Amino acid sequence: MRAVDVIRAKRDGAELTPEQIDHFIAGATAGTGWADYQLAALLMAVVWRGMTPAETARLTRAMTNSGRRYDLSDLPGPKVDKHSTGGVGDKTSLVLGPLAAACGVIVPMMSGRGLGHTGGTLDKLESIPGFRVHLNETEFRAALKRVGLGMIGQTADVAPADKTLYALRDVTGTVESIPLITASILSKKLAEGIAGLVMDVKAGRGAFMKTRAEAKALAESLVRVGTADGLRMRAVLTPMDAPLGRYVGNSLEVIESVETLKGTGPADLTDLSVLLAARMVEVAGLASDAAEADCKVRAAVASGAGLEVFRRCVEQQGGDPRVIDDYTRLPAAPHTTLVRAPRGGFVTALDAEKVGLGSMQLGAGRRFADDDVDPAVGVILRAAVGDSVKEGDAVFEIHYRDAHTLPAATKLLTEALTIADAPPAPAPAALEEIG
Amino acid sequence: MRAVDVIRAKRDGAELTPEQIDHFIAGATAGTGWADYQLAALLMAVVWRGMTPAETARLTRAMTNSGRRYDLSDLPGPKVDKHSTGGVGDKTSLVLGPLAAACGVIVPMMSGRGLGHTGGTLDKLESIPGFRVHLNETEFRAALKRVGLGMIGQTADVAPADKTLYALRDVTGTVESIPLITASILSKKLAEGIAGLVMDVKAGRGAFMKTRAEAKALAESLVRVGTADGLRMRAVLTPMDAPLGRYVGNSLEVIESVETLKGTGPADLTDLSVLLAARMVEVAGLASDAAEADCKVRAAVASGAGLEVFRRCVEQQGGDPRVIDDYTRLPAAPHTTLVRAPRGGFVTALDAEKVGLGSMQLGAGRRFADDDVDPAVGVILRAAVGDSVKEGDAVFEIHYRDAHTLPAATKLLTEALTIADAPPAPAPAALEEIG
Repeated sequence: MRAVDVIRAKRDGAELTPEQIDHFIAGATAGTGWADYQLAALLMAVVWRGMTPAETARLTRAMTNSGRRYDLSDLPGPKVDKHSTGGVGDKTSLVLGPLAAACGVIVPMMSGRGLGHTGGTLDKLESIPGFRVHLNETEFRAALKRVGLGMIGQTADVAPADKTLYALRDVTGTVESIPLITASILSKKLAEGIAGLVMDVKAGRGAFMKTRAEAKALAESLVRVGTADGLRMRAVLTPMDAPLGRYVGNSLEVIESVETLKGTGPADLTDLSVLLAARMVEVAGLASDAAEADCKVRAAVASGAGLEVFRRCVEQQGGDPRVIDDYTRLPAAPHTTLVRAPRGGFVTALDAEKVGLGSMQLGAGRRFADDDVDPAVGVILRAAVGDSVKEGDAVFEIHYRDAHTLPAATKLLTEALTIADAPPAPAPAALEEIG
Repeated sequence: MRAVDVIRAKRDGAELTPEQIDHFIAGATAGTGWADYQLAALLMAVVWRGMTPAETARLTRAMTNSGRRYDLSDLPGPKVDKHSTGGVGDKTSLVLGPLAAACGVIVPMMSGRGLGHTGGTLDKLESIPGFRVHLNETEFRAALKRVGLGMIGQTADVAPADKTLYALRDVTGTVESIPLITASILSKKLAEGIAGLVMDVKAGRGAFMKTRAEAKALAESLVRVGTADGLRMRAVLTPMDAPLGRYVGNSLEVIESVETLKGTGPADLTDLSVLLAARMVEVAGLASDAAEADCKVRAAVASGAGLEVFRRCVEQQGGDPRVIDDYTRLPAAPHTTLVRAPRGGFVTALDAEKVGLGSMQLGAGRRFADDDVDPAVGVILRAAVGDSVKEGDAVFEIHYRDAHTLPAATKLLTEALTIADAPPAPAPAALEEIG
């Protein structure tokens, strides 16, 4: 089989055979028979021609099998993870992981880092002094066994084909393809050895999918392909027009996550975290219906059981658990300043992408994948969408280190803010559920 | 400007700006800012989305300007070349170059080598002992000045961007794109410093374009873009279902070319060579209409003036001109064998692609670009399309060196042949003219 013939087949709109897909992924894994430019040409042909569900499922499986697959069958209990397509202020993983584990789910959570305007779970966790996101397999298994929750980075041996293709897609304009996104997400999740997966597919200004229709198409693809590859799947479509919660930035988001586990978090973050954790409990078979799952998860908030799992997780992974009771032990920015409302009225929009980019300007996020992040800096929304403000009221509290980062950040935050005379319609926690 | 943004623009169907196209070609030339995989992704996006005439013209100009452009303005007289999209048995260049030069056209002809089932002018010329296709600029100018005709290979400094892109297209399934084919052909021709170009666009079984509609679309693109880039253009659509003439193979084709210049060549080859040479004479402004041009060219055959130009060209480029009168001075295969008609009737088809591949099996052509060719081997069609044959009549005379090449070649030739009870409709020399 020659790479060029596989490319030509897809270019001409054919459905690739399982053998052709396996050949492609073998080429992306070991560099045998496929040059980078041939991988790129096929990726563009896939963006053009798409893939059938059968092709996408095969692609996913081949990418999973390109590397290490964890076998967690020796750990008793249902293994379920959650994945989000990425947003701004989205710290639900830090909340729902402990809550689901508190309800009996085993949560082997492999997360990523932030890029551009979106944050990443690993960056947030690493703002906790001592917290290690790179555990070896023995340590990871120990965490799952003792805590029911391990929150780590993807290891190098998981889905190496995805690593090659993801890097290529980023620089060849081939990111925007539902089959390729589906395979990229699910191949890594399947490698975790999980039985079920809850997807949070975000739609809106701060999301990768800008429209609800695109997000729905992706959610449906994920559910279909994940199911075909043997996962129990649920997908929730959620809005990402404004940041989730009120804290954006790594250690700031840890604080808000802990507050939410304590039962004193903002409503939007609490509701979405509970919803997603409840779906994990359902998928794990630990509740007979949605109402029971919801009730169990809310009890884990109220009892402090979720907070306790988080404390043990931090401890298990080398972090300082005292941060939970003493936020001053987290990195704090040396300076703060306020951005004030230019007029009175109702906050009707806080453009999540611009808030995320503003936070990135401060150093909380990455422009390029190998940038460092500053755990301390970020933005607190002193007013959220729906709040009424008077002229001169503080809207953003900027936590910064270098004053030279302020002008660009302030400009973006100011642009993110819309104030109008009438209040906006309230946004639901979830737009729609699939699966 | 970033490569990925140019790729995304074309992927999304936008018309690229001149600056974006120049950036792409600068990347293909110097390797600055564009990786091979980004070039490949853009090429596939162009196959997908196409290019407007304005984009194609800009692409052509940028590719021409990526390297050396010859300035032949110091040579008095109209400079006109001819290019063919490639066929089997197509030795018209060896005939029409001398004929056009004999009529006063200056013909700075840069040709290529054969690949796959198609032959190349350079390979044919090199079967003449001593003939040098690699002249330096001084030598090339001297040939044009003294003979009015130089037949050489493309120099390394002509259109280097095309060399990079052509090599990539070949292995990334991005050959089949009219804008890319147009730019590849014309960028090299524009670099020759010509004022006019006659295109022979072939359609049929042995051609790159299998259908007349595809060939016409390419011809129209070539005429439009060439005109926009300042060339006087004519395109002739010609059939390539059966080989042109009766000799296929390098030194065999030299013999048939010389015969045609002597006025004793086969009708199809004579007619097409005269037609294309006449168009060159017209484009050069050396005839007031098609009839006058045709008359001049036929006179150059009848008077032997064309043959005389060929003789001087061979001499000028280091070849042995005695081959013209003594074909035994050309390389000859040590063995011949015949393939006979399995039944009587009329030859209704001689599949040009299969004859070309059969000839390649014998060693006359290249499977890969760096293969050597054997100048001596090839096939003589003892019967052509339209001829009547009796069972057992010789149809193919195979000139071979190694007996182990015979079975595959014989199989292909046998498959190429169709004999039926009724004669086929005669094929015209040209299907249509454009420009």
